[in-house]
Formats: sequence, structure tokens, C-alpha cells
Amino acid sequence: MKLSQKVAVMQHSPIRKFNRYAREAEEKGIKVYRLNIGQPDVKTPECFMEAVKSFDEKIVAYAESEGTESLQRAISEYFKRYGIDFKKEEIMVTDGGSEALSMIFHSILDEGDEVLIAEPFYTNYHNFVTAAGGKIVPLTAKAEDGYDYAKKELIEGAITEKTRAICCTSPGNPTGRVLSEEDMRLIGELAQKHDLWIISDEVYREFVYDGKRITSFGAMKEFSDRVIIADSISKRFSACGARIGCIASKNPDITDAIMKLAQGRLSSPTLEQVGAAALYGLGNDYYNEVVEEYRGRRDAAYEELMKIPGAFCLKPAGAFYMMARLPVADVEDFLMFLLTQFEDRGETVMFAPAEGFYATPGLGKDEMRIAYVLNRDDMRRGVELIRLGIEKYNGR
Amino acid sequence: MKLSQKVAVMQHSPIRKFNRYAREAEEKGIKVYRLNIGQPDVKTPECFMEAVKSFDEKIVAYAESEGTESLQRAISEYFKRYGIDFKKEEIMVTDGGSEALSMIFHSILDEGDEVLIAEPFYTNYHNFVTAAGGKIVPLTAKAEDGYDYAKKELIEGAITEKTRAICCTSPGNPTGRVLSEEDMRLIGELAQKHDLWIISDEVYREFVYDGKRITSFGAMKEFSDRVIIADSISKRFSACGARIGCIASKNPDITDAIMKLAQGRLSSPTLEQVGAAALYGLGNDYYNEVVEEYRGRRDAAYEELMKIPGAFCLKPAGAFYMMARLPVADVEDFLMFLLTQFEDRGETVMFAPAEGFYATPGLGKDEMRIAYVLNRDDMRRGVELIRLGIEKYNGR
Repeated sequence: MKLSQKVAVMQHSPIRKFNRYAREAEEKGIKVYRLNIGQPDVKTPECFMEAVKSFDEKIVAYAESEGTESLQRAISEYFKRYGIDFKKEEIMVTDGGSEALSMIFHSILDEGDEVLIAEPFYTNYHNFVTAAGGKIVPLTAKAEDGYDYAKKELIEGAITEKTRAICCTSPGNPTGRVLSEEDMRLIGELAQKHDLWIISDEVYREFVYDGKRITSFGAMKEFSDRVIIADSISKRFSACGARIGCIASKNPDITDAIMKLAQGRLSSPTLEQVGAAALYGLGNDYYNEVVEEYRGRRDAAYEELMKIPGAFCLKPAGAFYMMARLPVADVEDFLMFLLTQFEDRGETVMFAPAEGFYATPGLGKDEMRIAYVLNRDDMRRGVELIRLGIEKYNGR
Repeated sequence: MKLSQKVAVMQHSPIRKFNRYAREAEEKGIKVYRLNIGQPDVKTPECFMEAVKSFDEKIVAYAESEGTESLQRAISEYFKRYGIDFKKEEIMVTDGGSEALSMIFHSILDEGDEVLIAEPFYTNYHNFVTAAGGKIVPLTAKAEDGYDYAKKELIEGAITEKTRAICCTSPGNPTGRVLSEEDMRLIGELAQKHDLWIISDEVYREFVYDGKRITSFGAMKEFSDRVIIADSISKRFSACGARIGCIASKNPDITDAIMKLAQGRLSSPTLEQVGAAALYGLGNDYYNEVVEEYRGRRDAAYEELMKIPGAFCLKPAGAFYMMARLPVADVEDFLMFLLTQFEDRGETVMFAPAEGFYATPGLGKDEMRIAYVLNRDDMRRGVELIRLGIEKYNGR
């Protein structure tokens, strides 16, 4: 029996595929600092479980395909705080940001169509675009250049007659890059000129540091006919396991296309939508506290990274990831070493090798991504373990 | 901006697209009996919410991509009662049966590949197969013939070099057809001969009536290398809104392919998996009671249907749907009449027009599907309203 080509070319998640070795290390009694995955150790706000526990219907029934009305309303209200205007009918609830992106790509891509995405990018974009039959055309961004990709020549040089969209993640995973309004205007104008969709993945919207402003393509009225927002409660509210996200757009054609896909999978989970609606009611105090927490974690991790001789890293302006070049030739091999041959006082560490975050072959082999999702002390210790590991690995 | 062709050719769910008119009727104060959707009014067993409420982690974290270990184990144990042997590693938890089917088709279909499915079939198969780039080749089954499609000539006549799989739903939605072991052996042998996958959608496994035996492709060892089971808790436990299903297969290649897709969307909802694991612990008393309840509903609905002059219906042997030919030329037009121009004592009724359950153009125009998911009295009244509606509609 044949398997599909499109799945055959997909990789196992570079973020998750080393889990097995981490588990084996743990079974040997070694503590593994997991810096590989964007699973924060920040508590999910209690209002989530309180809302879930108060669910008192006798039947856990299908929700509406577009999401429960109360969650659509709660998201619509939440958007207003950033000057983003989406009516509830323009918001479709999805199974996390993952399904949001998957549905968007299915809606706009046929076999061979292209999407521009700055690399390094969130590795699962590979799968979402490939499953939809499309192809990622990377806009290569470099740490030395601030991971800037909002450049006319770079973008226009990559556009072909098959290009359907430009997809931006801001704040960015894995780079922490935050687009300025000027960047966004340039991207928007190029999208207009070449008649492209703008897919804006804004799941880290609030996580910006050092006085950077929160921006959203959803607030730029001049591009509203072509903007499709992908969003999620996972990171914002540390509720990754709820699998609740949304798609928002003012373009009725895309809303109609998404609705067909949404009806096809019936609905998003009912209980988790009840919890999510409560989360969207949280006020500024919540956001201020969480953002301050992540800023502190970033600073701690960055400080420790700077102690690794030969490492290079751009201090991220947003989200909660850091890309770093390490003084090793093959980061995957180094990670295997950390998980199978290394320990310091009974502890080791895990990160995500960066090769999977690139579309251009050969890039990222000496880079890693870490997620600063653990508390400051754990971040310091985790990065210290990377440093100690490099000493041992290169000294073999 | 362009939308994808594959979504352009998709239909809005024929099961859900009349919702708007039903809601408008309800706003006018009319009670609508909803026989269109497989949303049972049977209570979700209390152990589901009890388990969810006892969740006491501080973080609603990602689950494993393949599902929580406790849910995998619970499903593995459950399968044993039917002689189905799947180890926990051979079971992957999905976002409902919908995602299970979607992942299966993505794993085996490339652009232009074909899947054999008996028609009428569950309408969302259209979307799952189309989104994966594939094409449904229908095996037309007729009520007069007991919806039998396990016929050598029919199946072999439809196989081409592009055929990748035969997909069976037993007990069947919308026909209620239950495959016998003999049927299954024939299908299995043809799949072997032509090297096809066997996709077995068994979400209604327990819902068989009149002494029919519960059968599963999972229990047929001779075909185990090519069998892929799609399953779900939605119908079995009246927990449609939980969106928990699974894929089970003993073929390591398909498991590996599915795992890539599973990692790409990270995980299924965490809380709902906690609830689902509890449901799988229910014993025979639960199943006996529920199956008896549906049998009674079927009989009530069937009896009322037989009172409609000119209607034709095969009494279903399983699942909880009934296909019926009505004495009207255009069932969709009749449904619009019911929702917008008809009422009897302040009540009307909604069903699913059957055209969307066929792949062959022109079939199903005078057929409807009803779901016998409401209690017996409501089923009787719902079907009575169809009868009264036909009198008014044809008498205009």
C-alpha cells in the first residue's frame, strides 16, 4: 500500500522528535530541563477551570462549527483593546492556532502554489503548507541583520506567478522579531501590489519587551480585505492543552471557505470553549504580570547564553523563544550527546535543533532554539547545562 | 486574491447549512424538531464531567501528540471486549472521528488518488478526501438491494491504478447498513488482491439491532497489515462536543505517517482526554441500555415513516440514521418549505437532504436522512410533521 508523497516528505517535529531520548534519560533518574517546547510553566489562570467546572449541561454537545457565540463575543471584545475591529461573525473558533493555520492554507493553496515566509520560521508551517499541497518560499533572515525581512527587494525577488500569500509571525517564533508599523505597511503595500493574502500569525501578540509597541495587521484598515489573522489562547493564557484558537478576517470569501472546512470537522471542543471565553475576560493586570515574567526569563537566559564562548544570539524583542548559533558543527548530534551521554549533577537539558526551522537546505545546522518558558532559575540552569555540555562535547 | 480550487468545490455541510432557517423559525416562536444532525439527546455519562472536574494540574498543558497514555490504555482495554487487539502504541488520539479520517486520507492520498466509498456516505467524506487532494469513487448502493455494496463485480469494476483504499463505515451512516463477516472477508480479500488500504470507520460499533453481531476489521488478523480504524467517543458515549477520537492500526508505516501529522498539530485537547478515559471504563450495562434506547427510537421513527404514502425506507440494522425516499421531487425545496412556510400547532421539523451524501450527480434529490437521536415521542412527532408537511407541500 502506498503512503502519500506529501506526508512522506514531512519531517517528524524537530521540537518533539527527541522526546523519546529525554524520557529515557528521565527513566535513568536524570532531570531534563525542557527548553525545546513552548509549554510555559506559568499557571493557567484559575478562571479557566472555574468556568469549565461550572458547565452544567447534561450533554456535552457539538458546538457551532464557527465556535460558541459567547467565545466569539469574548474574542471580539478582547480585540478592541488593540484597536482591532472584528465582529463576532468575522471570528471562527479553531482547534488551536494549528488548525487555524491549517485551514487558512487549505483555503488558499492548490497543488504547487507558494507562500512567502521568513525563515527561520515555526517548524510546523512545513506540515501545514505541505498538507495543503503548497510550497514555502523562504525569505531568509539573519540574526546579524536583526532577522529583518521587511525589505522590498527581498520580498519582490521571491514573488512568482504562483505566490498566493505572505505569512508573517509577529512577535516571531523562533526569532522574537517584532514587526514595526513601518514594516507592516511595506508588507501590506507589496501584498496589495501583487494581490497576495496577508496571513498574520499573532499568537504572541502581547509578548513584546523593551518598550516595543503591540501591533496587529488587524488594526490596519487599508489592508483589511486581504488580512487573515491566526490566533490562539495557548501562549497568551498558558492554556496550550485547551487547543483553542481562532481565525479572524473581514474578507467574506475567506470566511466562507473557512466555514466549509469548519463544518467538515463539525466543531471545536465544547468545554474548552467555555474555559476560553472566561480567559478572554482577564484584564491588564494579568497581561502586565505575565509579560514582566517572560521579560525576566528572557534576560536570565540571554545573560547565561552570553557566557558560552563562540555562541551568537540576538536578544529577542518579543514572543518567548531565542535562536542561538552554537560552537558545534552539528547541533542535532550535540543534542543526542546531551540526552544520552551527558549529565551534570544528575541533570541535563533539551532544546530544539534549528534545521527544521528553515526551508533552505543546509541552514540552521549549528543553531538551536530555546523557549524561555521555565522560571528564571531553571532558565539559568538550563542554559548553563548547554554551556557545560559544549565544553564536554568539544573536549571529547 | 485567489481561493483554492479544492475548497471552492467543497459544499457547505448539507447537514448544517439549513441551520440559519431553523434559527429564524425558532425566533418566530416555532419549535423545530432537529432530525438533521447526529447530536443525541442521550445524557453524557456523568463519569465524564466527574473526571474533568477532578483535573487538578495547575497548567492545562499540551498532551502527548499521540494522546495521553491513560487514554491510549483505556482504548486498548476497551477494544479487547470485541477481540480487537491494539497495543497502546498502535492507538493515536485525534480531535474526534473527523480528524481521524482527515489524517488518514492525508496520509495515503496524493493529488488525483482515488478512494472507494459506498454511496450514500457520510457527507463530510467529500471534504476530507478533497482536502487531501483525492477523489471519491462511489460504489452505488440501493435501498431496494439492502444497501449492499460488498460485491466483487461492483468493487473490482471501480478499481483503477489510482485506487489507494476502500473505505467502509459499518454500522453505516446514513444507511444503517451493517457489514457481515462474510462481507468483510470479501472486501479484505479484494483489498489484498489489489493492494489497497482498508479504512474502517467504526464510530457506531455498538449500535447494531435485531440480533446482528458486532464486527470489526480490527478483529480480522489476516488483514491487519492494511487495516486503519477510525473511531470516536462522540456517538458511543453521547459526547460529541468533546471532540475525541482515535486512529488504530497495526501497520507501522501508517502509524509513523499519522504521527507526523499529529505532531504538526501538537495535541488533542487535554481535559477532554481526561473525561474520555473515564468513559471507556463503562461496562456492559451502559451499552445495553443505550442500544435498547436507540432501537426503540428507530422503531418509533420507522413506524411513523411507514404512514407517509409514497415514502420508501429500509429499516436500518445499525447506527442511528435512516434514509428515506419522499414523494417530492426536490427534497431541499421541501425542507425550505418546512422551515419557512409550514407549521403545525407551532411546530416544524428539519432533516438532512440526501444529495450531499452521494458522489454521483443527480442521486439523492428525493431522499432525506433523519437521525433518530431524539426520544421516541419526539421522533414520532418529528416524522409526523414531515408527513403533514408533505400533504401541505404537495397540495399547494
